[in-house]
Amino acid sequence: MPHPLDSFFAPQSIALIGASRDHEKIPGRLLAMLRKNEFPGQIYPVNPNYDEIDGLKCFKTIAEIGAPIDLAVIIIPARGVLAALEQCAGVGVKNAVIISSGFAEEGGDSAAMQEQITALARRTGMRISGPNAEGFFSAVQRVAATFSPAVDVKPGVTPLNATKKRIGIVAQSGGIGFAYYHRAKALGIAVSYVVSAGNESDLGAGEFLDYMVQDASTDVILLFIEGIRDVEKFLRAARRAAELRKPVIVTKVGRSGAGERAAASHTASMAGWSAAYDAVFAKYGFIVSGDLDEAITIAAVLCTSPLPEGDRVAVLTVSGGAGIWGADAVSLQGLRVPELSTPIQAEIKKLLPSYGTARNPIDVTAQGVTSGGLQKSIDLLSTSDEVDAILVVLSLSSEVRMPFKRNELKPALDAQRKPVVFYSYTVPSDFARRELAASGVVVLSGLTHAGTALRRLVDCAKFKLPPAAASASLPERDLSAYLKPPLLSEADSKALLRAAGIAVPDEILVTEKSGLDAAIARIGLPLAMKVQSPDIPHKSEVGGVRLNVATKGEVFLAFEALLNNARQARPDAAIQGVLLGPMAKKGVEIIIGSLQDATFGPMVMVGLGGITTELFRDVVYRPAPVGGEEALAMLDELKAAPLLQGFRGAAKADVAALAQLIAQLSHLAARLRNDVAEIEINPVLVHPNGQGMTIVDALVVKKGT
Amino acid sequence: MPHPLDSFFAPQSIALIGASRDHEKIPGRLLAMLRKNEFPGQIYPVNPNYDEIDGLKCFKTIAEIGAPIDLAVIIIPARGVLAALEQCAGVGVKNAVIISSGFAEEGGDSAAMQEQITALARRTGMRISGPNAEGFFSAVQRVAATFSPAVDVKPGVTPLNATKKRIGIVAQSGGIGFAYYHRAKALGIAVSYVVSAGNESDLGAGEFLDYMVQDASTDVILLFIEGIRDVEKFLRAARRAAELRKPVIVTKVGRSGAGERAAASHTASMAGWSAAYDAVFAKYGFIVSGDLDEAITIAAVLCTSPLPEGDRVAVLTVSGGAGIWGADAVSLQGLRVPELSTPIQAEIKKLLPSYGTARNPIDVTAQGVTSGGLQKSIDLLSTSDEVDAILVVLSLSSEVRMPFKRNELKPALDAQRKPVVFYSYTVPSDFARRELAASGVVVLSGLTHAGTALRRLVDCAKFKLPPAAASASLPERDLSAYLKPPLLSEADSKALLRAAGIAVPDEILVTEKSGLDAAIARIGLPLAMKVQSPDIPHKSEVGGVRLNVATKGEVFLAFEALLNNARQARPDAAIQGVLLGPMAKKGVEIIIGSLQDATFGPMVMVGLGGITTELFRDVVYRPAPVGGEEALAMLDELKAAPLLQGFRGAAKADVAALAQLIAQLSHLAARLRNDVAEIEINPVLVHPNGQGMTIVDALVVKKGT
Repeated sequence: MPHPLDSFFAPQSIALIGASRDHEKIPGRLLAMLRKNEFPGQIYPVNPNYDEIDGLKCFKTIAEIGAPIDLAVIIIPARGVLAALEQCAGVGVKNAVIISSGFAEEGGDSAAMQEQITALARRTGMRISGPNAEGFFSAVQRVAATFSPAVDVKPGVTPLNATKKRIGIVAQSGGIGFAYYHRAKALGIAVSYVVSAGNESDLGAGEFLDYMVQDASTDVILLFIEGIRDVEKFLRAARRAAELRKPVIVTKVGRSGAGERAAASHTASMAGWSAAYDAVFAKYGFIVSGDLDEAITIAAVLCTSPLPEGDRVAVLTVSGGAGIWGADAVSLQGLRVPELSTPIQAEIKKLLPSYGTARNPIDVTAQGVTSGGLQKSIDLLSTSDEVDAILVVLSLSSEVRMPFKRNELKPALDAQRKPVVFYSYTVPSDFARRELAASGVVVLSGLTHAGTALRRLVDCAKFKLPPAAASASLPERDLSAYLKPPLLSEADSKALLRAAGIAVPDEILVTEKSGLDAAIARIGLPLAMKVQSPDIPHKSEVGGVRLNVATKGEVFLAFEALLNNARQARPDAAIQGVLLGPMAKKGVEIIIGSLQDATFGPMVMVGLGGITTELFRDVVYRPAPVGGEEALAMLDELKAAPLLQGFRGAAKADVAALAQLIAQLSHLAARLRNDVAEIEINPVLVHPNGQGMTIVDALVVKKGT
Repeated sequence: MPHPLDSFFAPQSIALIGASRDHEKIPGRLLAMLRKNEFPGQIYPVNPNYDEIDGLKCFKTIAEIGAPIDLAVIIIPARGVLAALEQCAGVGVKNAVIISSGFAEEGGDSAAMQEQITALARRTGMRISGPNAEGFFSAVQRVAATFSPAVDVKPGVTPLNATKKRIGIVAQSGGIGFAYYHRAKALGIAVSYVVSAGNESDLGAGEFLDYMVQDASTDVILLFIEGIRDVEKFLRAARRAAELRKPVIVTKVGRSGAGERAAASHTASMAGWSAAYDAVFAKYGFIVSGDLDEAITIAAVLCTSPLPEGDRVAVLTVSGGAGIWGADAVSLQGLRVPELSTPIQAEIKKLLPSYGTARNPIDVTAQGVTSGGLQKSIDLLSTSDEVDAILVVLSLSSEVRMPFKRNELKPALDAQRKPVVFYSYTVPSDFARRELAASGVVVLSGLTHAGTALRRLVDCAKFKLPPAAASASLPERDLSAYLKPPLLSEADSKALLRAAGIAVPDEILVTEKSGLDAAIARIGLPLAMKVQSPDIPHKSEVGGVRLNVATKGEVFLAFEALLNNARQARPDAAIQGVLLGPMAKKGVEIIIGSLQDATFGPMVMVGLGGITTELFRDVVYRPAPVGGEEALAMLDELKAAPLLQGFRGAAKADVAALAQLIAQLSHLAARLRNDVAEIEINPVLVHPNGQGMTIVDALVVKKGT
């Protein structure tokens, strides 16, 4: 299916505006890179100072070219860029990449120039990448529209190529995007495209991601994000990737304070709030990585392996100590290293010396390499139903010897029955890399990363895109009346939730002593009593809460005391009265909340309540709304999940009811996104299965307050 | 100072028993390695089948040599090893390395042969390494007593050497030991020794560690452990390393189930219990690493940097995105990336283009390299008191260009004012490695590892060896009477603790109803009442606990009910009565315990009590006994530490009293190590500062029960 960016990534003709003869400088390097990489289409250098450059006719102006141009690469001083773009648009150039810097990243007038570029793109329909971009590289169509030294072609060097599958790289940092490429190339991982997004005046990372998702030559996507600007496109592409089950490995930087500050000044980007990014990544099954080598390792394994059917790993080694380390590394990731059955052990042992072991880790010893035990073990394990993946741990430092014969290894791996991953504890030699590449092997050199990669493969195999969130049985009601007060007290907040259709306990706000008798009659004893004021969010701190009030007399005394305490502590507070409600049954203490992310809008959160939430940060976020199924998946992600499942012989909690409440709150947060900044239910006590739960306290915060 | 192993590691003469002409096989390779590495002493090949090998006279027997021999390297079939050792001992050979396999790792008769080797070493005083060892390598004295290909010398290749400091490598796996060496060599880190321990019939990892600790040519130690056998020597060496502040980077494998099983079968070693290992490592300030590259990275930084004086890091980059990633990586480690002061920013900005930033991360941009901004920033930051370490994040892939001038960079780094660490996001070129090595730089290529290394340096700088644990004010008393019953109930356990001098609440074990009045009179109301039986460790489960019993009448009723409940639930249980005590004041719930580790003996543990302990495994161990200062350090390591420090406005807990209790319990566990397997105080409620704490429940488990 054609894509609007086809002519961008696979241009027939390229105008290089600002071309130069000086190979030492960026404009000259751009032309050299294009030609060295053997761009198969037309190249039109444009520069009024030259008649020809390196044997190519050079044009004074864009108009002079007089032929259709798919892509203009612009590398002239910032002040001239807009005029050049106008000329491009004038002669129908379809796409442009602006390499030049000096726009939004500088602020002031320069930022205004970038806004004009954006406007030009909208007005003319010409698609523009950059400014301040490092350009892109298409290995598929041999388009090196970049000055990155990473795409330089070294004479006499045969590229290492171990994979049939290819990775596509989308990066909001050119340096990092081409570093991914440089590292992938060194390992022999094939690449389809590398694109750096620059300042994203028009084309953004979301749209580039969309291209990689639909592109048939891209099997795995590497994504580097500082802050997404084209959010809708990004989310559409993310959903499509999940639907197509095309893996996306994402790194989001700007997670720390210092990082965020720099993100703001560096690419004029709102770095966003990482929890919301992580929530979006989790929703769409993105593989999150915080390390370049780790990301590349995961990509390597995805490019060379099918997804595993389970989490059982065989660790196969020639060195006992290294094998144990391998078993530790995968076990640390929660994968299993099961002892093999007696028949399989017996088969393997036939080829091992007496001091080898076939239990798992399987130590074939150095002798097992020459005896064929190593290869035989791979053959046996790759067809066995006792393990789902194989981690081979060995030394591949030799420049002359290989522990495998190509004609034996390649057929076993070509069958693609399960992931087979090769890790060398010594520095892998170029010889080993090249020899094993012929069998489709990327030699890994980081054990922790290899363990992580296997874990991510298992996660990928298990991932299910949650079904679109249904209405969560919340009626469509006009809630505007409940949002009139500038600040909402607990009673106001609960009234809003109740009106929205959420099951809040039957409580009564008593404003005068005279109302107490009726309230007691309706609710019964003992009572929970809480002073109410929109100005007092933390009621306990002012002595505003009494629990287990057991007799009528005590209720009257408490009513007085609560109001007095509040008035003394906060003389200026508007006090509404005292909220009377039944004492809640025991249950697992949970916190549910929603908030508005600057980039992705409403988010819903759930966590274990009480001290634990703050201390262990055991909380999970998702973009709102979520359905019941997705809410259940959120609960499963909590470290405290066992508490809900009947911990230490306790009853299993009513997880279904809790999931419904999360879904309801998420729908409400999404529906009220224009008016409400935050909703928090804290705590909600989840009772044993079938007994529902009790919302103890709630707070709704309006936007802009 | 001379060390008993000097003649082992720096022999004047080596007899190679089982020498061979076949370079393809291990015996032949051993001789080749020795000669290629230019061993400066005498080599005596011993093999009855040859008169000479490769131009060296070959001896029929060891006795025939007729000259003093410091080291015999033995590579003959297992059955002949013992006889060869006897001959060595007969002519006064000082040390032997047995490369041959087929001993304890095979079990049965082969294991018995190893025991005879051990006995021979004890009897003759000859020191023996192996069997089943990969030998050792001394880069200092050019002794390659190993067949590892890692020590092979490649003609025409100039070794890369970036560090003046050297690492010493001690490994219980030859494969891993020499992999460390291979990777260190590739990065240009100088090595003093590599020694593989093999089956440790005599010389063990602990004694080798001891050698590295006292060795003046070793600055940093890399240690790989499957299971320590020479525990006392290991602990002495560990303490000495801590006293000398010589860093030890340790990897302990066999942490997972599968790993432990393999450790047992592979090196006939008890893999031990990793928590105890980690406790010992923590006590002596060892740097624990679970990844080979990470361990080497930490070693590289320790070999090239002084320890930092604080935790503030400047991140200096040429690529905005990479700089933010660098800031994230160090922030993730809990290090700070502070914004620089205006004067420093102003100084740096002078050399930056307008789109650079000097805030921190400092992005000097690609232009900042040519303008000198990069070097100038290093100069400024390395003398500034605003940061304690510098992380330089850049691309070092070029084979021809360098971002630094040697005569500018080297003086700045030679001054050794603070750690300056260089990370390349592209694959570093050999050219860059060699160029920067001249300035003492090891180029790092893993960002997460670089961040971890900086963190470990900060930890190293802060580490203090806790003072030897004093007596913890526990009187020396004979407690044997309290240990008579085979199983101890809560009351028995508390009686033991009380007798030992630990402050247990005043409680009374009431056996008859007639005793209740007196007990109430002494303790007061309300009461906590708990049925007592050594056969009922979980009292709540049988309805054996009543709390807050408020009136005399209720006490009598509860007494009956508790005894009845227990008798019904456990008709066979020996019931002692009911323990009456005061209700405890509120406090932070803590668990303290002790247990006996098979390798290291008594251990003390502390953790946050309640559900959290089990769910989040927030516990800290140390070898017992500990002093009060060390107990405080344990508490600081808990994730839940803030709860003790006055979390959410609560009062600060009586941490001093808690630390004393930990110290007391640890002393008791150490003193009773022969009789008591476990002591557990769970929970102890720690009250606000100055108010002490209350031991609510306690359990003492005797050994062998």
